[in-house]
Amino acid sequence: MFSPGIIVAPASATGGAIAVIRVSGEGSIALCDNIFRGRKPLIEAATHTLHYGNIVEGERVIDDVLVSVFHAPHSYTGEQSVEISTHGSQYIVNAIITLLCNQGARLAEPGEFSARAFAAGRIDLSQAEAVADIIAADSQAAHIIASTQMRGGYSETLNNLRDQLIELTSLLELELDFGEEDVLFADRSRLEQMLSQTISVVERLKKSFHTGNAIRNGVGVAIVGAPNVGKSTLLNRLVGEQRAMVSDIAGTTRDTIEESVVIDGIRFRFIDTAGIRTTDDTLERMGIERTMAAVKRGQIVISMAEPTGDFESIETTESQTVIRVVNKADTTSEHNIADAIYISARENIGIDRLIAALRETVDTTAAYRGEAVVSNLRHYEALTAALTALVSAHSALINGISSELLAEDIRLAINHIGEITGSITSDTILQSIFSSFCIGK
Amino acid sequence: MFSPGIIVAPASATGGAIAVIRVSGEGSIALCDNIFRGRKPLIEAATHTLHYGNIVEGERVIDDVLVSVFHAPHSYTGEQSVEISTHGSQYIVNAIITLLCNQGARLAEPGEFSARAFAAGRIDLSQAEAVADIIAADSQAAHIIASTQMRGGYSETLNNLRDQLIELTSLLELELDFGEEDVLFADRSRLEQMLSQTISVVERLKKSFHTGNAIRNGVGVAIVGAPNVGKSTLLNRLVGEQRAMVSDIAGTTRDTIEESVVIDGIRFRFIDTAGIRTTDDTLERMGIERTMAAVKRGQIVISMAEPTGDFESIETTESQTVIRVVNKADTTSEHNIADAIYISARENIGIDRLIAALRETVDTTAAYRGEAVVSNLRHYEALTAALTALVSAHSALINGISSELLAEDIRLAINHIGEITGSITSDTILQSIFSSFCIGK
Repeated sequence: MFSPGIIVAPASATGGAIAVIRVSGEGSIALCDNIFRGRKPLIEAATHTLHYGNIVEGERVIDDVLVSVFHAPHSYTGEQSVEISTHGSQYIVNAIITLLCNQGARLAEPGEFSARAFAAGRIDLSQAEAVADIIAADSQAAHIIASTQMRGGYSETLNNLRDQLIELTSLLELELDFGEEDVLFADRSRLEQMLSQTISVVERLKKSFHTGNAIRNGVGVAIVGAPNVGKSTLLNRLVGEQRAMVSDIAGTTRDTIEESVVIDGIRFRFIDTAGIRTTDDTLERMGIERTMAAVKRGQIVISMAEPTGDFESIETTESQTVIRVVNKADTTSEHNIADAIYISARENIGIDRLIAALRETVDTTAAYRGEAVVSNLRHYEALTAALTALVSAHSALINGISSELLAEDIRLAINHIGEITGSITSDTILQSIFSSFCIGK
Repeated sequence: MFSPGIIVAPASATGGAIAVIRVSGEGSIALCDNIFRGRKPLIEAATHTLHYGNIVEGERVIDDVLVSVFHAPHSYTGEQSVEISTHGSQYIVNAIITLLCNQGARLAEPGEFSARAFAAGRIDLSQAEAVADIIAADSQAAHIIASTQMRGGYSETLNNLRDQLIELTSLLELELDFGEEDVLFADRSRLEQMLSQTISVVERLKKSFHTGNAIRNGVGVAIVGAPNVGKSTLLNRLVGEQRAMVSDIAGTTRDTIEESVVIDGIRFRFIDTAGIRTTDDTLERMGIERTMAAVKRGQIVISMAEPTGDFESIETTESQTVIRVVNKADTTSEHNIADAIYISARENIGIDRLIAALRETVDTTAAYRGEAVVSNLRHYEALTAALTALVSAHSALINGISSELLAEDIRLAINHIGEITGSITSDTILQSIFSSFCIGK
């Protein structure tokens, strides 16, 4: 993972007016001087300065560029670094990267700049992961969670937790040293209190994954109901209405993400389904099976019915929220199903109430207050493992099981929490994390 | 076109690790200070320096950014400018641009940064056009032509031409002043020599458009021949073989440009055609009509035949090059059609000779020497108009027509040449040129 050398990669996508190439490593400034012609050599430049000049291949000018110079340790990687701002042409970017590689640089692995920042201790592992998340974030809530994590608020919570557990183990070691004396009982009470406290923090973090994951990946909403009840009309209404709220700056709308829309800072992914109906027809039964699978994918299920109120019976899990909706409400004045939202998808009636109900299912209070919210499956799994160890320790404690086993459980929990920020980690884990990054990051 | 105010736009495409937002106009640095929190205000920063900090919306941090500060006139536009380097997220870019617009900036029109650079006299019109060309250039030859034009080599040729014509008109005015005296004859001879010289320069430039246009837009190559002669096999061979030569940096291959490939620095666009065959079938006849249309689009026509040498008769124009190719050459040893290239598309025989023949059709000598090569239709049309005027002036001169009419023709030519660099231009022309640019340029 952490091989030495000067690395180079495109840092921006091409297709705009300008493109940026990033170079990092000891000697990277001198290396760039080999292909740069400006008023003075870059090696003489102060850190955080910009220099206009040409990138040349022998006598041939490849491009007019602006070069940013960063001295160690004041760069993203913590190393000596250079950023070359070129005209936004793939041809030019490729030509300059090739020139730099000919001078002794090598193409960076995906995530290698961030891996170096991690190795230099500039960011921890969860912060590095947040960099990838912040780039992918396409809603306000997802951005806030990634931003809190990137700027270290999340790590602080975990580090506090870890510090508390380390304090716990040192108290246990104290007890082991004075094992036979009467300090024991008082300590045990104190230990139990501390352990309960950490358990409740880990439980809160673990629970936040339900929201964090929904915000990060979008909240799945399955729309189910009998054929012709108006599911597709509702889908078009929800997506169409909200599309207008998307910023009108070119490039915002991603046509490839179908039936996905940001409502009040949260991305919802609407999943249209085949109508549900008891049937003997094999083909139709297959469609219904797919519907049931879609229902499982949704954190929210919108169950739709005609004004007659014949809702389909749908199996949902405890963690799923069901919103009952009566469509075609404009055709009747009898709106007497108490827990249902009456709408007309076609006539655009009641849609605002449905949207409010959708929005209420996602509690963004903690995230918007800048509290730590778990949105990463790897972190969730580490917290789950830590919680298991802590609960086991707690049970050992109140059952008077020996301090050695207790200490072992707590050390296990410390390690699991350390995996998240990378204070405890393996090369294999690092490899798998950073290789999922984009190149140039 | 040249409305005042502080303009803002995304300058890089998003999708990479970082994105760049460009802000320009008097007061742009102070405007950015309203949403920037760093070690010190940007307004206190020296030109060409980089500043780390946060972009904030009230208390909320939108992103950690690096801000580049440029004082007038040392920026692309010649105005006070700021570039904000953010994490490469569309959400963040939109959020920051929205914040800046709330502070009083406005979204830039396409090409508005370049239009301001032109208005400030930092670049002329042909250089501004070359900026758009250099971004689009996807082959070495196209890049070299755009690069020569962008860095002013092209403008220099045109300005010299214009200076010569202005000298001519001043000599003519001298003659008008001393109309009746005997300086007349000597001047006329000198004038004729100067005029012939400028005509030959304009002719050379005009002629270079044939190559320049082919290089800029790719050289069209129509492959025609009887059904089953192996056209598609050849196409796959030409494209497939050369694809391996494309740089292996991620993002280079553009799958959407079908059947187009760069050979030795030149882009060739291969146009596969339906087989030609005399037929009564209406549908097939329509296919053949399309083939004929494809032939017209190709600067080069590869006419393919079986070893029997039955070439189809194709109507081509004088400016088209026909390359005769006999396929399936591995099935016979009789290679006796003197002007044909014998190949086997399937067995990969003789393809290198065909590629060499294709490459030879494009004369890149002038372009690679850094000479002015016309690649822009607008310039070609202006040169054509200038040439007409100059030829008319020349004919007036040798036929002893009055100096007033002669001077009028030359002034016309001066104006047409001035249109290219923008020394003579109208708002309508500028509007149409810059509006074809991408936003942020």
